[in-house]
Amino acid sequence: MYEGMYLLSTIHEPQDLLRLNYSELNRLAFELRDKIMTTVSRNGGHLASNLGVVELAIALHRVYDSPRDKIVWDVGHQCYAHKLLTGRFEAFSSLRKAGGLSGFPKTGESPHDVFGTGHASTSISAALGLLAGERLLGGTGRAVAVIGDGALTGGLAYEALSHAGQLALPLVVILNDNKMSISPNVGGLSKYLSRLSMKARYQSFRRKFDSLVKKLPLIGEGVYGGIVRIKRAVKAIFYTDNFFVDLGFEYVGPIEGHHIQQLEQVLKDVRKLDRPVVVHVITRKGKGYGLAEEDPGSYHGVSSFSVEGGVPVFRKGTTFTDVFSRLILEAGRKDPRVVAITAAMEKGTGLSAFKGEFPHRFFDVGITEEHAVTFAAGLAAQGLRPVVAVYSTFIQRAVDQVIHDTALQKLPVTLVLDHSGFVSDDGETHQGLFDIALFRPVPYLTVLAPAGEAELGLMLNWSLTVGAGPTVLRYPKGLCPPGCDGFFLPLEWGRGVFIRRQDASLCLAFTGSLYTQVLDAAEILDAQGISADLYNLRFLKPIDEAYFVNVLNRYDLFIVIEEGVGLGGFGEYAAALGQRENCIPRILTLGAQDRFMSQGNREELLQRNGLNGKGIALFAAGEYAKIPGVLLSQTAVP
Amino acid sequence: MYEGMYLLSTIHEPQDLLRLNYSELNRLAFELRDKIMTTVSRNGGHLASNLGVVELAIALHRVYDSPRDKIVWDVGHQCYAHKLLTGRFEAFSSLRKAGGLSGFPKTGESPHDVFGTGHASTSISAALGLLAGERLLGGTGRAVAVIGDGALTGGLAYEALSHAGQLALPLVVILNDNKMSISPNVGGLSKYLSRLSMKARYQSFRRKFDSLVKKLPLIGEGVYGGIVRIKRAVKAIFYTDNFFVDLGFEYVGPIEGHHIQQLEQVLKDVRKLDRPVVVHVITRKGKGYGLAEEDPGSYHGVSSFSVEGGVPVFRKGTTFTDVFSRLILEAGRKDPRVVAITAAMEKGTGLSAFKGEFPHRFFDVGITEEHAVTFAAGLAAQGLRPVVAVYSTFIQRAVDQVIHDTALQKLPVTLVLDHSGFVSDDGETHQGLFDIALFRPVPYLTVLAPAGEAELGLMLNWSLTVGAGPTVLRYPKGLCPPGCDGFFLPLEWGRGVFIRRQDASLCLAFTGSLYTQVLDAAEILDAQGISADLYNLRFLKPIDEAYFVNVLNRYDLFIVIEEGVGLGGFGEYAAALGQRENCIPRILTLGAQDRFMSQGNREELLQRNGLNGKGIALFAAGEYAKIPGVLLSQTAVP
Repeated sequence: MYEGMYLLSTIHEPQDLLRLNYSELNRLAFELRDKIMTTVSRNGGHLASNLGVVELAIALHRVYDSPRDKIVWDVGHQCYAHKLLTGRFEAFSSLRKAGGLSGFPKTGESPHDVFGTGHASTSISAALGLLAGERLLGGTGRAVAVIGDGALTGGLAYEALSHAGQLALPLVVILNDNKMSISPNVGGLSKYLSRLSMKARYQSFRRKFDSLVKKLPLIGEGVYGGIVRIKRAVKAIFYTDNFFVDLGFEYVGPIEGHHIQQLEQVLKDVRKLDRPVVVHVITRKGKGYGLAEEDPGSYHGVSSFSVEGGVPVFRKGTTFTDVFSRLILEAGRKDPRVVAITAAMEKGTGLSAFKGEFPHRFFDVGITEEHAVTFAAGLAAQGLRPVVAVYSTFIQRAVDQVIHDTALQKLPVTLVLDHSGFVSDDGETHQGLFDIALFRPVPYLTVLAPAGEAELGLMLNWSLTVGAGPTVLRYPKGLCPPGCDGFFLPLEWGRGVFIRRQDASLCLAFTGSLYTQVLDAAEILDAQGISADLYNLRFLKPIDEAYFVNVLNRYDLFIVIEEGVGLGGFGEYAAALGQRENCIPRILTLGAQDRFMSQGNREELLQRNGLNGKGIALFAAGEYAKIPGVLLSQTAVP
Repeated sequence: MYEGMYLLSTIHEPQDLLRLNYSELNRLAFELRDKIMTTVSRNGGHLASNLGVVELAIALHRVYDSPRDKIVWDVGHQCYAHKLLTGRFEAFSSLRKAGGLSGFPKTGESPHDVFGTGHASTSISAALGLLAGERLLGGTGRAVAVIGDGALTGGLAYEALSHAGQLALPLVVILNDNKMSISPNVGGLSKYLSRLSMKARYQSFRRKFDSLVKKLPLIGEGVYGGIVRIKRAVKAIFYTDNFFVDLGFEYVGPIEGHHIQQLEQVLKDVRKLDRPVVVHVITRKGKGYGLAEEDPGSYHGVSSFSVEGGVPVFRKGTTFTDVFSRLILEAGRKDPRVVAITAAMEKGTGLSAFKGEFPHRFFDVGITEEHAVTFAAGLAAQGLRPVVAVYSTFIQRAVDQVIHDTALQKLPVTLVLDHSGFVSDDGETHQGLFDIALFRPVPYLTVLAPAGEAELGLMLNWSLTVGAGPTVLRYPKGLCPPGCDGFFLPLEWGRGVFIRRQDASLCLAFTGSLYTQVLDAAEILDAQGISADLYNLRFLKPIDEAYFVNVLNRYDLFIVIEEGVGLGGFGEYAAALGQRENCIPRILTLGAQDRFMSQGNREELLQRNGLNGKGIALFAAGEYAKIPGVLLSQTAVP
């Protein structure tokens, strides 16, 4: 196990780093990269971002005294070296496995993970809170936020920078500038950072200019108004031409991010300052692994792969993302009003083809979900048909923009939520379980859940042509079943479709993503002699209530099976409707439990929540047995 | 009606402004202020912010061709002059009345209100979307966002600035710098803007320096490395020392915001530019009304007042805010770990006294709800007991920060949501109707709704001492009833309290804020011979389900009455629980309807939704009559 890891295997806590010399530290960096690559190639995970901060993690843990000093890793997809240096070398092979180490910092896992992350742009706020708290409690510990140039585009980071500038506490913000967020970084800020980096040479010119001015012979007040004024002007250049300085920070950089000794020296100097500092570090994503350096996008988050051969192109089948990718392209060809927006998730949401054909109708706004939605609302107000494609977990960032800027004005924005429901491996922070509950209460909003390819087409088309206000379209990260005949039936306002109807006394109604699981359940139930009708909800909001009440009243037992939190889910609505309209059946819900779901693959997560075929069948059979006179009703009901 | 309004009454659309000369325009500005003051003194509304932009509104509507050119007013609390200049002079007396003009821009009200606002920091995103859409559709219309220095602290504004810098479309951002958001503006950005303003003189020095360099005699390559290099350096100063320029904008300013002719000239010049521009305008809040100029905070949003005497100190009774203000102060005295955070709502949320006594334990982070919550999470992770006090409608901005940064880590942050439920006069954008539905699905979160003073104390204390994770405490903008004996009963985990129990067959269960209305309803029902038990829910999450099922099973009819959206509300949970546990009663909900609630005072809004005493009684009596054997059950049930 420790083969080739003769240094790394001896690091049990950060203090162990202090006895290594720089030559050994460089060897340690090599071992860290080796360990990270080997593990990610087996378990999947984030590769390029983790390879990029190996030296930075070493330097930070030599200069700062974790966990007394707090190091917060923004997003957290670059925390592997940190984990390996803080007592988790042996456990590291369990990375991202159910019950194993998380791929993100997690407070329960180690005292060195002082604040959990997963979503972008939170680190500066969190570190500032930790530092302000430490000071209020009389402590002298430090706080460091490590944030990438991509995460810095998020408004939350800027809010925190501005507040930190005001509080003037010695917060250290490490700007990990790798010129790339998940998609190539965009926006004015990105251009600005490039200029800053290129200015290293310019700054050296300025220093020379400054010393020149000091040596300048007095030419007379009449000509210059005095050396003092010029020196002031030069000083003004130095102190004002920087965004971070504008906000109240000291700015140090840019510095090379793969030189441990140099990084350490800078961090030691910075540690002495008693005010907020931005340390601008230039790193290379995928550093040390040629394939990942060349194409960091493909090595951002990966499934298992072979270290020699690279990421496999192997596919098990067509995913919802694939289908959406084709459909949005077709929609763009048909209607010039269709435009696409994403927040740094071009590839992940399948928009690359659309971008290729319609570059001027495609907007990657960077990691700014809030802006993505309000910008789309503006486009819609102008008469366009914007489609915002993001992951379900990240739309949590833009709830107010959906409510206040979009739904309130009935603007026809289509919100395509990929990675809805259970998401494999990434754990609590990346589950897409809240979207139904968050958006069902919003007036004028339509929430649709396709069960397969044909339905995704119907629903996207509905949203782009029929829908009067905003529409949420949610589907999981997973295969898109070709589906059955029912999926081709036209979409009718507020109504679902039966995909199996045998006039049973039990109905299983489901959100699209659970089609396969519900089919499995029906098969198991059949084998037990329990017949169940299957109703694909399609619409989670709005509902044609008269129609739905008729559907309900065909049954003795009606079970809503949904891939989303049970609390606030569709099932509660159905139950309340049943009570209000004195419907016949007992109406039950099977949804995600009321807790955050730790990592596991989608199948495991479904099973854990009783939402796989077996779980559904077990629940349904148990409740079915409680129906009074069940044997009678089972035979034939007109 | 037109007395003294001889110019304003002739302005029916913006073009009418073009026939006035500058002397007349100044008179018009006077009339606008007069009209605004008179109307706000009668109807209440935003005063200081509206008085500050009168000249700006005139100049904008002379230079830009609204509605072909789009003007988006950020927050919208400064849109009165705009409304008066765009055909709404006669309707203006209905401002903020039910059925009258909205106090905010509203697309349904006029084609000149191109994008509705209410919450801060949306204007740049929206205007950028409008402009990008216009260009994609082949139009040549312009777009202008008018944003205050307060709203500019919001991360969304920064996300939009960065994207606008990238798109390089000719978006005009008017930075309305009045040195004050609702509370005095805070943060690094604010300091930066002050420096920018003060640099007007410095800039003029630089221009002189620049021309000086041009005239400089050649002293030789050896000394300077050539004039060219110096000129480059000077140019570099000019182009790099500005935050907005960093992001890709032209920057113009700062300019005086109360000089119509000068404003107009600058805007005309700016209109010619084919790239994004920030125009930095210095205005004075409350301009033209001495009392408001001196104390713009008190005149930000006001109820009716006398123009001569100013805002009244008159109070009808103790509000929830008053009680919280006292309780948080007491809590702060008892426990040094208690710290308070607000997002530019120090006065509105009642934190001034706490700030006065504990200035170092008070943080006003500016209009940055996202940062407020994640910063608080950081403080909590360090062992403090942070209390974040904001309005319910604004917490919609921080849903992900509550879920991902706070609840997921079980951090003991107390979220105090003032202005929950129906909010008088401000209309759709400011209702606090979503908080229950948004937060009930979040694991580890506690949601509490106090009915009165004693309960608010119990609940705040619970959250600060007993609560293991985050707690939401929600109460309305309104009087805090002293309450009854039941309110003093100790808080028990997940349980409510009966405030009247007569072993009736009907129970009215309610969220705290509707205590008075439910009492009224009970009285009306009593008069009709219908007895109802009254159950104060207290906990909306989590629920002691075994206990609650026992409560439910005492009744034939159980009605949940809640001040929040019905869809996703507590009533749906109760109904689903009832079905799951085969409870005896029919469980119904009375909540806010599934639409955005336009303006009206709280009483009107409650009535509109059937949530006043009469409405509740009517609903309850109607459903009560449907109980089988109601006459029997009415007499005596053990």
